Amino acid sequence: MLGAVLHAPGDVRVEERADPAIIEPTDAVIRLSATCVCGSDLWPYRGVEKPDGPAPMGHEYVGVVEEVGADVRTIRPGQFVIGSFWASDGTCELCRAGYQSSCVHRVLMGTIGTQSQLARIPLADGTLVATPEPPPADLVPSLLAASDVLGTGWFGAVAADVGPGKTVAVVGDGAVGLCGVLAARQLGAERIIAMSRHAPRQELARAFGATDVVTERGADGVAKIKEMTGGLGAHSVIEAVGTQESMAQAIRSTRPGGHVGFVGVAHGVELPGEELFFSQVHLHGGPAPVRRFLPELVDLIWRREIDPGRVFDLTLPLAEAAEGYRAMDERRAIKVLLTP
Amino acid sequence: MLGAVLHAPGDVRVEERADPAIIEPTDAVIRLSATCVCGSDLWPYRGVEKPDGPAPMGHEYVGVVEEVGADVRTIRPGQFVIGSFWASDGTCELCRAGYQSSCVHRVLMGTIGTQSQLARIPLADGTLVATPEPPPADLVPSLLAASDVLGTGWFGAVAADVGPGKTVAVVGDGAVGLCGVLAARQLGAERIIAMSRHAPRQELARAFGATDVVTERGADGVAKIKEMTGGLGAHSVIEAVGTQESMAQAIRSTRPGGHVGFVGVAHGVELPGEELFFSQVHLHGGPAPVRRFLPELVDLIWRREIDPGRVFDLTLPLAEAAEGYRAMDERRAIKVLLTP
Repeated sequence: MLGAVLHAPGDVRVEERADPAIIEPTDAVIRLSATCVCGSDLWPYRGVEKPDGPAPMGHEYVGVVEEVGADVRTIRPGQFVIGSFWASDGTCELCRAGYQSSCVHRVLMGTIGTQSQLARIPLADGTLVATPEPPPADLVPSLLAASDVLGTGWFGAVAADVGPGKTVAVVGDGAVGLCGVLAARQLGAERIIAMSRHAPRQELARAFGATDVVTERGADGVAKIKEMTGGLGAHSVIEAVGTQESMAQAIRSTRPGGHVGFVGVAHGVELPGEELFFSQVHLHGGPAPVRRFLPELVDLIWRREIDPGRVFDLTLPLAEAAEGYRAMDERRAIKVLLTP
Repeated sequence: MLGAVLHAPGDVRVEERADPAIIEPTDAVIRLSATCVCGSDLWPYRGVEKPDGPAPMGHEYVGVVEEVGADVRTIRPGQFVIGSFWASDGTCELCRAGYQSSCVHRVLMGTIGTQSQLARIPLADGTLVATPEPPPADLVPSLLAASDVLGTGWFGAVAADVGPGKTVAVVGDGAVGLCGVLAARQLGAERIIAMSRHAPRQELARAFGATDVVTERGADGVAKIKEMTGGLGAHSVIEAVGTQESMAQAIRSTRPGGHVGFVGVAHGVELPGEELFFSQVHLHGGPAPVRRFLPELVDLIWRREIDPGRVFDLTLPLAEAAEGYRAMDERRAIKVLLTP
């Protein structure tokens, strides 16, 4: 099969890889209907994370089950399925508490690589959610978005305790931040402030439910949020970048007693304890337990209540993955869908 | 009147200070029945915080109202009252949300200094809680504890989302940590692990409801908590110290999806963002909004359901405050009550 492999920073190649097979009796193998490039794939692409040798890429996936292992009970060949970037057993204490991304048997899908034609999915029963029937083609991008960016933005909103009557600010206008806007709208937020200075992203943020757009960032962005909230700060802030600056902006934009949901993968961040102490914010985040939300998200998409697939503004054949990485790296595309 | 003043690190003197008077029409003046030395008073006493010149000390207080300003409506002369270390108006949006320690009109009582015979209490209606009648003498220490250490430990437990069925670990065996144990017990925790290596504090922790005592600290302490919780970590961890080591110990002792309530005043703490991200813990803390809990705490004390006054293991006349500071600095006393 074909699959994308990162050989060095900036060097993604689509090349022949061995077809996956069932290894554990709890595995499934799926044929991908669509996959995509994640903002977090840009960390190794840009050399911020250093891979040890050639690394298969990708951790987002939807597709049709080809084969299942002997112990798989609920997933069957022929089903159209969605899973998240952590495979999880669904039965351990942490899964049952809703933290499937910390499952005691978790497997990081990024180590398997799903920017490919086929993929092995460990712990299939725990990991995969099947649609009621094969989806119409126009729903596939939204279902693919649920695999990571929607689920991650949704977790950001839940971690930020978004709810009715609240003012929510979203730091980061990538696909996750935009999905955070969508989640905030669905979760009933009263006011949703997207922080973005890119016109196409502002437009999508408004389409997803943003009531306001703030173009300032850093201290100016914080001042603007304070000005819009009677000097207090937002009730809920979703952080979807992962840098020192974005974390500081998120924490400082939140009122005392408010909540920061941080889902941008932290890189080089050091949080000053004194500031955090006196800020009195709640802080929660990390690798999103997307699986917790998948049944609900798939249902919302199936009923066409949400359309997160709009984050894909560039579709390319898998063979052109390298161009997809370039387009996202240069911020020419919000998110790139790859057709295997 | 007499009051304690810190002249330099290690140099606390009880000296004549001007009698307080009503300055704002929302003020009250109280005659203190008891006051005390706080663990946080040791930061400037040890020179970790540098005061600018002589500083009046103390922020914990119970006493009898002597006089109120023209705009005070609910507090009357003759009442026995308790307040917290932040004076708060009780009416602003943050007070109404339960974050009185971030009240938009807050006044830090430590700048006024309550290790004294009399004290001015700003925003009396918002700040003070009156007992049903003058308390019997044996309840005074517990009511004084409610002014800070009990309220702070209680907030730590609430911030750590303590509740029925949960395993709670408490980092720090000072008065706040011990009151955190008491709070965890009251809030229904199933298992309460006090981390302490001091026999008298272990004993008080057990009296307050600790089911287990762990003497290991740092990485060994974390390993012990993991071992006691099926490898996962505690559901809730109360951090009541405020150092880099104690914060790391608290975060690492908490399971993914669990909660850290941190109430030790952070000093020189830097939290690594990556570790916090992947830990998936909830983090909340800061200066406790003690006022939120005071009515309930006073009621529990009044009905003799809790006895937090046991944290005071040394009582001295106010005139001997310097010895009180020394005893706490040298860990000869858990907490020192001063009689004015």
